[in-house]
Amino acid sequence: MTPLVPVRNTSSIGYSPGMVYAIVGEMKKLLGQLDTWLESAASFAKAKSFDPNVFVGLRLAPDQFAFARQVQSACDTAKFAASRLTGKDAPTNPDTEQTLDELRARVRSVIAYLDGFSAADFQSSATRIVSQPRWEGKVMTGADYFVEHAVPNFFFHLTHAYAILRHNGVNIGKRDYLGPLSLRTP
Amino acid sequence: MTPLVPVRNTSSIGYSPGMVYAIVGEMKKLLGQLDTWLESAASFAKAKSFDPNVFVGLRLAPDQFAFARQVQSACDTAKFAASRLTGKDAPTNPDTEQTLDELRARVRSVIAYLDGFSAADFQSSATRIVSQPRWEGKVMTGADYFVEHAVPNFFFHLTHAYAILRHNGVNIGKRDYLGPLSLRTP
Repeated sequence: MTPLVPVRNTSSIGYSPGMVYAIVGEMKKLLGQLDTWLESAASFAKAKSFDPNVFVGLRLAPDQFAFARQVQSACDTAKFAASRLTGKDAPTNPDTEQTLDELRARVRSVIAYLDGFSAADFQSSATRIVSQPRWEGKVMTGADYFVEHAVPNFFFHLTHAYAILRHNGVNIGKRDYLGPLSLRTP
Repeated sequence: MTPLVPVRNTSSIGYSPGMVYAIVGEMKKLLGQLDTWLESAASFAKAKSFDPNVFVGLRLAPDQFAFARQVQSACDTAKFAASRLTGKDAPTNPDTEQTLDELRARVRSVIAYLDGFSAADFQSSATRIVSQPRWEGKVMTGADYFVEHAVPNFFFHLTHAYAILRHNGVNIGKRDYLGPLSLRTP
């Protein structure tokens, strides 16, 4: 079969700072869910009488990030999305977490950081210039960066953290992933 | 530690039909990436002289969806998001795929379906009422459904499909996940 993938440019379509804020809010919510998975992992270790911090080094493939790095990456993707799209400084995290409790503290620190943003902070985010050392001098617009980089990367690392726990027997399920939904009575 | 997760209502914040269209476009792009992972899985099986369709039944935990179902679920989440948010009928897929080629055809059919939408189709999506049998009569607004359900579910199943292949040795990496980025010269 022939390749499919076109490069898209999203910035001209219908970028909305308020919607970016809403999706950053969803990231924040799901980091709260991640905090509950970490709690379930600790409970599972306790019930099975093994060191809960074994989880920190588990991975799905030898050349993939271990659990701790997946958690750190999910945290950083959300943190840097908010920082880069608003121009506000992000706190530094040295990635030294060695225990589930330290990972929970990391997750909670990012949630607290994200709590400090309002929709107005994202007002000029579409046209901000974002770059990273690995892009070798190239840049992305804020709009492209959010849709093509921040969103898919956040969920990539979050879901890998979930999958590593699930693969190793932790009793979590889809509802623990999604968290409470804004269901209404019709 | 005390629980963190609040229920959020996103619909009032800054929903944008154009941005929903852009993110559905990103889903379409990443389904194109999934098509390339399926190709890599087939190549890996050929190089190792095993039946490529073994992948269809692999899973990370005995009570998680197998690979085929993860692919089908990623496809359906994107398909139903577009359908439910625009009021356009979605094609029926009986979930009978048994081979990597059939899964590739499924992925490509959803990409073709998503190709049929324009930003204007999503104009009144924020206030559409969305429901599912499992919600037992409850509903979500289109805005809440997109941010809290469609987006996280799409990436959940897409990333699980990726992780199952990666866990089983297929030679794919982060660039194959993200696909080409809209990088620019400053």
